[in-house]
Amino acid sequence: MPALAGAYERTRRATEALCARLTVEDHNVQSMTDASPAKWHMAHTTWFFETFLLAPHLPGYAPLDPAYRSLFNSYYNAVGSRPERSLRGVFSRPSLDEVRAFRRHVDAHMMTLLAAPVSPELEALVVLGMNHEQQHQELILTDILHAFWNNPLRPAYTREPRPTHTSPGPVRWHDYPGGLREIGHSGSGFAFDNESPRHKVYLEPFRLASRLVTAGEYRVFMDDGGYRRPELWLSDAWDTVRAQNWIAPLYWEKSCPAWQTMGLHGMRPLSDDEPACHISFYEADAFARWAGARLPTEIEWEVAASEAELKGNFVEDGNFVAISAPQQASHHPQQLFGDVWEWTASPYVAYPGYRPAAGALGEYNSKFMCNQMVLRGGSCATPRSHIRASYRNFFPPQARWQFSGIRLAKDP
Amino acid sequence: MPALAGAYERTRRATEALCARLTVEDHNVQSMTDASPAKWHMAHTTWFFETFLLAPHLPGYAPLDPAYRSLFNSYYNAVGSRPERSLRGVFSRPSLDEVRAFRRHVDAHMMTLLAAPVSPELEALVVLGMNHEQQHQELILTDILHAFWNNPLRPAYTREPRPTHTSPGPVRWHDYPGGLREIGHSGSGFAFDNESPRHKVYLEPFRLASRLVTAGEYRVFMDDGGYRRPELWLSDAWDTVRAQNWIAPLYWEKSCPAWQTMGLHGMRPLSDDEPACHISFYEADAFARWAGARLPTEIEWEVAASEAELKGNFVEDGNFVAISAPQQASHHPQQLFGDVWEWTASPYVAYPGYRPAAGALGEYNSKFMCNQMVLRGGSCATPRSHIRASYRNFFPPQARWQFSGIRLAKDP
Amino acid sequence: MPALAGAYERTRRATEALCARLTVEDHNVQSMTDASPAKWHMAHTTWFFETFLLAPHLPGYAPLDPAYRSLFNSYYNAVGSRPERSLRGVFSRPSLDEVRAFRRHVDAHMMTLLAAPVSPELEALVVLGMNHEQQHQELILTDILHAFWNNPLRPAYTREPRPTHTSPGPVRWHDYPGGLREIGHSGSGFAFDNESPRHKVYLEPFRLASRLVTAGEYRVFMDDGGYRRPELWLSDAWDTVRAQNWIAPLYWEKSCPAWQTMGLHGMRPLSDDEPACHISFYEADAFARWAGARLPTEIEWEVAASEAELKGNFVEDGNFVAISAPQQASHHPQQLFGDVWEWTASPYVAYPGYRPAAGALGEYNSKFMCNQMVLRGGSCATPRSHIRASYRNFFPPQARWQFSGIRLAKDP
Amino acid sequence: MPALAGAYERTRRATEALCARLTVEDHNVQSMTDASPAKWHMAHTTWFFETFLLAPHLPGYAPLDPAYRSLFNSYYNAVGSRPERSLRGVFSRPSLDEVRAFRRHVDAHMMTLLAAPVSPELEALVVLGMNHEQQHQELILTDILHAFWNNPLRPAYTREPRPTHTSPGPVRWHDYPGGLREIGHSGSGFAFDNESPRHKVYLEPFRLASRLVTAGEYRVFMDDGGYRRPELWLSDAWDTVRAQNWIAPLYWEKSCPAWQTMGLHGMRPLSDDEPACHISFYEADAFARWAGARLPTEIEWEVAASEAELKGNFVEDGNFVAISAPQQASHHPQQLFGDVWEWTASPYVAYPGYRPAAGALGEYNSKFMCNQMVLRGGSCATPRSHIRASYRNFFPPQARWQFSGIRLAKDP
Repeated sequence: MPALAGAYERTRRATEALCARLTVEDHNVQSMTDASPAKWHMAHTTWFFETFLLAPHLPGYAPLDPAYRSLFNSYYNAVGSRPERSLRGVFSRPSLDEVRAFRRHVDAHMMTLLAAPVSPELEALVVLGMNHEQQHQELILTDILHAFWNNPLRPAYTREPRPTHTSPGPVRWHDYPGGLREIGHSGSGFAFDNESPRHKVYLEPFRLASRLVTAGEYRVFMDDGGYRRPELWLSDAWDTVRAQNWIAPLYWEKSCPAWQTMGLHGMRPLSDDEPACHISFYEADAFARWAGARLPTEIEWEVAASEAELKGNFVEDGNFVAISAPQQASHHPQQLFGDVWEWTASPYVAYPGYRPAAGALGEYNSKFMCNQMVLRGGSCATPRSHIRASYRNFFPPQARWQFSGIRLAKDP
Repeated sequence: MPALAGAYERTRRATEALCARLTVEDHNVQSMTDASPAKWHMAHTTWFFETFLLAPHLPGYAPLDPAYRSLFNSYYNAVGSRPERSLRGVFSRPSLDEVRAFRRHVDAHMMTLLAAPVSPELEALVVLGMNHEQQHQELILTDILHAFWNNPLRPAYTREPRPTHTSPGPVRWHDYPGGLREIGHSGSGFAFDNESPRHKVYLEPFRLASRLVTAGEYRVFMDDGGYRRPELWLSDAWDTVRAQNWIAPLYWEKSCPAWQTMGLHGMRPLSDDEPACHISFYEADAFARWAGARLPTEIEWEVAASEAELKGNFVEDGNFVAISAPQQASHHPQQLFGDVWEWTASPYVAYPGYRPAAGALGEYNSKFMCNQMVLRGGSCATPRSHIRASYRNFFPPQARWQFSGIRLAKDP
Repeated sequence: MPALAGAYERTRRATEALCARLTVEDHNVQSMTDASPAKWHMAHTTWFFETFLLAPHLPGYAPLDPAYRSLFNSYYNAVGSRPERSLRGVFSRPSLDEVRAFRRHVDAHMMTLLAAPVSPELEALVVLGMNHEQQHQELILTDILHAFWNNPLRPAYTREPRPTHTSPGPVRWHDYPGGLREIGHSGSGFAFDNESPRHKVYLEPFRLASRLVTAGEYRVFMDDGGYRRPELWLSDAWDTVRAQNWIAPLYWEKSCPAWQTMGLHGMRPLSDDEPACHISFYEADAFARWAGARLPTEIEWEVAASEAELKGNFVEDGNFVAISAPQQASHHPQQLFGDVWEWTASPYVAYPGYRPAAGALGEYNSKFMCNQMVLRGGSCATPRSHIRASYRNFFPPQARWQFSGIRLAKDP
Repeated sequence: MPALAGAYERTRRATEALCARLTVEDHNVQSMTDASPAKWHMAHTTWFFETFLLAPHLPGYAPLDPAYRSLFNSYYNAVGSRPERSLRGVFSRPSLDEVRAFRRHVDAHMMTLLAAPVSPELEALVVLGMNHEQQHQELILTDILHAFWNNPLRPAYTREPRPTHTSPGPVRWHDYPGGLREIGHSGSGFAFDNESPRHKVYLEPFRLASRLVTAGEYRVFMDDGGYRRPELWLSDAWDTVRAQNWIAPLYWEKSCPAWQTMGLHGMRPLSDDEPACHISFYEADAFARWAGARLPTEIEWEVAASEAELKGNFVEDGNFVAISAPQQASHHPQQLFGDVWEWTASPYVAYPGYRPAAGALGEYNSKFMCNQMVLRGGSCATPRSHIRASYRNFFPPQARWQFSGIRLAKDP
């Protein structure tokens, strides 16, 4: 089997492995408009290969069901109409079995396509589709967690034991000099278009915290009236706090006198030593202001991360790994990769000279470049091979259902 | 087996028979807050017997899962808290299999309870629970139809052939004299508390149409600009027409040049001869005004229906039967029972001297006595044994997902 | 001056007298969509005479400004388009002076019209216009009170002294026999179309409270957890209580330990002896349930009120009089007329045989016959000559900004 | 009179001159939550001097009315509570006369304060207050225009003749080299805290259009289906276009076959030669994409503007001047200053090393640094002395009621 076909296979099987823990009904639920059913993720990732690979590039390809072309379109206006996003959980048909058959149908034809020599353009599309599927692997986990949270039974995604946390010790501050630097994707590996072009930036000196903010530190902020003091919050943030009655991060629940938190292992006591998670940008920003610090810009983060080894929370090549314990003695900040996504102070905009791809795939990243903030570093739910220093994730500032947390920065 | 136990069994099996056509995923979908998943209907009707029969009256009864007490509560505040109604479709757990086990668990204990002699009070509660379950049988059908409508694949609930309609001929008008009458439940059979007490009313003479308004007649109203002429509509109705962009009844779709309609048999051409269906009170009222007529009051309807034989659309003792064709030569209006629910001009209020039951069951009917209109007669989705002349159904004036239509009345 | 012209003059001057206490800016404010600026009321009542009297019936009449025809239309679809209701407070132009000139222009031409003999049809229209203006006189008071309440300065409409309340003593119950009765307008005086036709009703025996519910009695309900006990509320009512965070009637404010209330005299201590006021139907209904009683139907109320003398809170022929103190020794219930509007248990629907007027005026009352409840008796803000036993006022069940309160009824 | 006192006087009188064209009622209207009544602007700018200058720095100062401290607070949480922003138009009291008296009261005491020598810190606060008042001068114009637009009479703010436009000729492109530059406030004049610190940036080469996009050019975009083609719009932008039914810029109205536009001179024919105005960021961004260009970043804009003479649309030292006609032969882009605010591609964030002021004034700019886009250059409604190259204005991407338009940029 050619290497590309092998990589394709591994990506597809990884998705199915993640879903193997779900019941038929679990696959179908959608607990908010921003989340999607696992069945939809399985179908949409398959739709991607059918729409962008098989239909245009495999002669004689016949879709399993032509209705899927519209049904499983996410947001590509150039591909045509699509159902309202909030209705995805209503689609009991096609059934899970039919979606699995759709996957097998597309996989079989992809094997045909990849058995022959493929052009670099085609290979780029296949790799894009695999990275696309990896993004949805993470969403399968974050979206089912949200659904389970909204179920009073609070089911657990997994019964496997969860590693315990040990105290990470006090924060230390790493100093970085200012000057001209470069950020953006370099080298020959895959990157999304929004990581390019690599370009020069001028940077002031800055300091970066050696580790993530812990749940214990965040509780001090809460106990200090953090959610009741408007002077700590951005204007839009304060409106959100009041409108949504926020008093803690998402998935935190007071169980007097202690706090519990909901995760893929179900409800469990919150440890002071674990990284604060399921935090919005608004909360991260308010915490930083309270702490007398600030969030790093994505430029600062990437500069620091590029110097660190890409060694983080990678006990296996898969999703959903344990969150790493920071090591004290290190020349670099710890927990940069694969623990929680780290909110930056940077709105998500195009790099200088950015050009989106032509056609429908140009919508992939570029049309979201407004009202969203950049997150960096990957989370415990991100596939290991999907993480890199130049990767730009983005979510609206009020979003909390991702595995997102806080690293502080400071001016010297 | 005692008669009551046998009746209980038949009711429970009828629910399951209706669900037998649904896939596992079908059971879980909720397409709007007003609708509920079939799995929830199966569990909630079971919850009713557990909460009101087994827990208080079967010594030593242990619930299968104590969490169900809150999870499957619909709206009984006296029973305690309950999940937000809009979240029912998010509950992938308990699974369909677990809900079926819940049904078996409760059924087995109900058989124990009913094997011994039961007091009249207990028998009344059991019969109430059976009638409650029959109401949910109808909702299983109306709610899955709404979900299927929102699925672009437009699945059909059944593939059985659907009877065709023949022309019902012109409307004739039946004359009723005025004077003192009585309405409300009488006799020894079951009735809901809101059908009592039977009481005197003074009535002016009135005329009632011999049959339901047909889809063809309703299309004339549409072609005459019915949905664009504010003078035909109540003030709140016109606001709804504009806010919801109504241009036809629910489940009607223009497929140029003809109209299609969605039903339990899937999408099919609309027949001019079938009764207009999936009509709101607002539309029924506007149609009547356009037609130079009015809707009957529930008093007028009941007086007329009490004189007619309770013989309608009853080809079998079950739900989901064919809509009857009106017969021309009759001393009574036709299609009164079991075709479509008929909107009346009467807001849903208490009868004089009405007393709700004590405790949680007092919430069954009485707390909805505001902002709803009475419908009469039962629909093709109503169990045959559930239909009677004194039965008062009620829905908000904008509701359209029930099988609801129009019968006209006039002053002499 | 003919009698009709004199009555017209008195009505018009009464409106202006009510506005004389307002500043230029007061005339322009609109604090919610349901309320309108006083300037708009002044212009709209004038628009009525121009549209329905002068334009069709005074040869050669030229409007002062043709744009007013649309600008000051309230809801008559047959007259044409009109601005969004919520924008009325945005209309700084025409100025108050221009609206006053509009009134003078129309008044002068009305004098011309009324100087000649008028047909009965024309006289009926003029009288309708006068009664229409009286309705808006009341709204001028209720709407400015709402605006003043929303102003943190809490201005007072008047600085005149407010009569104090004395204890009304315990409630007594008046018994009424059942049987055939008649309700609806009779006699030769003016009545709105919705008070006709007079018709027979059959009534069960009932009991009616001798006086209104007092603020002190309502506070006992509040102290007993009235706003926190869902079993006391209709389903829609409870949703409203939670969504709006109701904890007391409108215009009541806790000023520890006592309660204050806002009225046309400004903020003042709430007296236990005054009638509970600014109550919604939802609250009136919940209070009645808590008190082991119910609200009267509009039929019961009218039957009782027709037997009482029309003597109530009428110290002057004007609006905004003191609320009467009930007298203990009486054969009839007290405080029936002119204190607070009394919510009834009756939804607002057409009387049997009701026919709305032809043309635009048919919209006056009939298109609101849905989702509203009937109130009876008039309030302290209702012109005295506008009050009669057959008068049917109507508002949505959640409305609270009118002077509305509670009288209880019971079954014997 | 000391120079500072003189400058203070001029600023205050300029506000009153702008309001001199308004009626009493005009001063009170608020047509949307984002806009405020002119009376409120007059009071709030006065509140600023009372709160931040007189109360802390003038011994013995007694406020005219202590209630104003809360009533006219805009958004300073550190100063205390304040009324809901949407209610400002409801405040008929204090009257316009009382607000004018408030202005005189504060002015008199400010004269006392400024008669003595003032410390540099105090002077900075006074100058901040003057610049604050200038911002509200512009808002007085933009807010009353919005109110007049929502009045069907479409009043004009001024009857003065409006200069006509001549064709600006084709766009030319000015080239700028890349490299290290500096942006941010420099020199000794006043600047807001968000313009600092001046800092180095690295810039790629870019091209900037010689003039603003004209209404005629924008109409070509509209005629080319601009508002119907999702591929031209950001994702949030397209949602807004559909939700708001946008088909043209704000204040544009089709008057077949031509277009009219509403401005401070009232409704008038739209000229193809005038700059497109009342454009949101969303529309500016979509137009740029359609035109094969992009919006400039605020860095690019400032670099170009810093090289140009600060000579623009300045025929007088005041607000509301004619929009300039671009001159063809120039070494610099034209219309940079004082025509329409120019949307940039830059989200509004802090400059590196930015520190907000301590206390309540720290809220002035910093708490809005999220979900807003930067605009540059000033508009025809901006006071001339308020315009400078480093000035950063900011509004949400959907805002359209400011005088905002489009300048294009390109990569070389």
